[in-house]
Amino acid sequence: MDYQFSSRMDGLQASAIREILKFTADPSVISFAAGNPAPEAFPVEAVREITAGILQNNPVGALQYSISEGYTPLRDTLKADLKTRLGIGREFDDLIITSGAQQAIELCCKVLCSPGDTLICENPSFVGSLNAFKSYEVNLVGVDVEEDGISIEKLACALEEHPNTKLLYVIPNFQNPSGVTMSLEKRRAVYELCLKYGVLILEDNPYGELRFSGSNVPTLKSMDTEGIVLYCGSFSKVLSPGMRVGYLCAPQPVVQKVVVVKQVSDVHTNILSQMICHEFMTKQDFPAHLEGLRRIYKHKSGLMLEQMRRHLNPKITYVEPEGGLFIWCRLPEKVNLMDFCKRAVMNKVAVVPGTAFLPREDQPTSCFRLNYSTPTDEQIVQGIEILGELTHEIL
Amino acid sequence: MDYQFSSRMDGLQASAIREILKFTADPSVISFAAGNPAPEAFPVEAVREITAGILQNNPVGALQYSISEGYTPLRDTLKADLKTRLGIGREFDDLIITSGAQQAIELCCKVLCSPGDTLICENPSFVGSLNAFKSYEVNLVGVDVEEDGISIEKLACALEEHPNTKLLYVIPNFQNPSGVTMSLEKRRAVYELCLKYGVLILEDNPYGELRFSGSNVPTLKSMDTEGIVLYCGSFSKVLSPGMRVGYLCAPQPVVQKVVVVKQVSDVHTNILSQMICHEFMTKQDFPAHLEGLRRIYKHKSGLMLEQMRRHLNPKITYVEPEGGLFIWCRLPEKVNLMDFCKRAVMNKVAVVPGTAFLPREDQPTSCFRLNYSTPTDEQIVQGIEILGELTHEIL
Repeated sequence: MDYQFSSRMDGLQASAIREILKFTADPSVISFAAGNPAPEAFPVEAVREITAGILQNNPVGALQYSISEGYTPLRDTLKADLKTRLGIGREFDDLIITSGAQQAIELCCKVLCSPGDTLICENPSFVGSLNAFKSYEVNLVGVDVEEDGISIEKLACALEEHPNTKLLYVIPNFQNPSGVTMSLEKRRAVYELCLKYGVLILEDNPYGELRFSGSNVPTLKSMDTEGIVLYCGSFSKVLSPGMRVGYLCAPQPVVQKVVVVKQVSDVHTNILSQMICHEFMTKQDFPAHLEGLRRIYKHKSGLMLEQMRRHLNPKITYVEPEGGLFIWCRLPEKVNLMDFCKRAVMNKVAVVPGTAFLPREDQPTSCFRLNYSTPTDEQIVQGIEILGELTHEIL
Repeated sequence: MDYQFSSRMDGLQASAIREILKFTADPSVISFAAGNPAPEAFPVEAVREITAGILQNNPVGALQYSISEGYTPLRDTLKADLKTRLGIGREFDDLIITSGAQQAIELCCKVLCSPGDTLICENPSFVGSLNAFKSYEVNLVGVDVEEDGISIEKLACALEEHPNTKLLYVIPNFQNPSGVTMSLEKRRAVYELCLKYGVLILEDNPYGELRFSGSNVPTLKSMDTEGIVLYCGSFSKVLSPGMRVGYLCAPQPVVQKVVVVKQVSDVHTNILSQMICHEFMTKQDFPAHLEGLRRIYKHKSGLMLEQMRRHLNPKITYVEPEGGLFIWCRLPEKVNLMDFCKRAVMNKVAVVPGTAFLPREDQPTSCFRLNYSTPTDEQIVQGIEILGELTHEIL
């Protein structure tokens, strides 16, 4: 049988980086390639208690079909929490629970972008979102990220050049993969530009709670007086990614359309997990839990950075992150990135070549991404030592 | 702000039946409009024990990110079970876990059908699937369902008429909404026809285990020597729909593409629920549980049919189902279906007008669907009495 696939699959080729990532299945390889929360970040005991309580008190509610919009008590809690803590949510907004922020991002693209419409993203950006966009055959245009966020000049050019732009996708806090946080000035400029061009902003904020130094910067959504920002949040980095619970806070007309496609996608998000998230937010000390997470990642990032200063060839440059899970490193341009990544994995250390995060994989890059949340302290020490030796060998 | 949505949303209008279904939120309305498992069908005690065990023995595994293909022990258990019990799965096949069969159906359409490609379905058919197909802008062609399944003659005509047909979507067992089971002869004819025209078959079998009379008929997938059948199953009707766990068994090239779009859709299915399904299949007496479900639905369908014989005007016709959750009723043609359904809901009984299940909602129908799994015995008795009075009034 010769299987013919849809045109939308043409842009979704198996990536060149899979070759490297598949080595991470080997337990002798130290992986700095993942983006998993640290195992010690899971509030195991609390989840155990909460789950037992739900299955005791409301088992049928936890097992039966539910509604596509999401579990009402969780939606209400999130709305109140976003409003109080982040100034997010106005009268024209609504909130839907999704199966991770990934689904919120995919469904926003599905309801808003016809094939050929332009979607502008940061360059580099999160590969999961880029592939979701590609699966709807958008014209994906990347705008370079600078040390304080997306280039406003280049964004203005891109908006001018592509009048069919429907969406701007940004990760303003501790961006994946660059680790960069967009400055307040740039956030204001991005908002004004998008308002001027009638472009909606898809703001993805999975790492916002994981700031371990510096000060919080207001979200784009908190500035959204005109209803142009679609805000995605997630429990993946603050409670559990395995539960697949995220959310979208956006103007009602957008949420209404997302509810329709959510229904045809998976009917609703796993209801037991929605209940667990709700009870975790309301019956546990959520702020104290978040404080604990920040301590864990502050320690891990600090350890990795300390080792990098000791072992890496100083020609390798990077910006120290103020939060999130990643450090983005730049090789001198003469070094072949894929060669470096392949040699690293041969030496039992996996990193992700920056190629994976480009809107167009054929563009040049000399960057790679390190993750410090998943490896143990011992693995961080040992792995950076190995990488360090390699950087001295090749340079 | 004037929100512009993608072209694919044009075909996904809010349905006319929503007007009726929204009344079911009123607790004084007896709903025969749902498709929920009976609350007493949930093995609450077993789920409680299994869940506590998982969160005790492997909490990090249950909370951490997992792989898009699904939890390997569950995949292996399902493959073995499908092979042994149903003769499903050949060397060229693979299996992926999805967030309910709904997602398997949506993703198959996404990877296989470009806009404008023809997708043939039964007429009537399951509204969730029809909307998933519409969201990918396929040319949706319905072929009438007869008492022993889809009309082979009309299917042959449709295949001849639409050379760009990519998929045939069928629910061979206790079809939703018609309750019809496709005969073995017709299954063989469908398979041969699709093979001849190079069309893949999407076989949706959510109710297969819920046969309470008659004998099992082999699945289309069990006949699939050539790799043209994509088989969807689900835990929604045999364990819990709230968990959102389903699966797709299909030829490897198709599953590989579905893995790619699954990853951009929700990364992976809720992992705790996958573990619960696995333990329920391997550590509990699953066949005995299924036997218990059949007893529940045999009783409930029997009770509803008995009441229908007593109370309904004999001009209302229906076929007695051998399994599943639904009874499909036909009004005499002179009766206005929507009027009847509206009057029913005014009298505090909700049924679903057949319009909801048509590939094209503007086609005529005089049918409505009754569900017996969700209401209590008392509600069945009382609701059918009310419906009966109405049928005598209007006829």
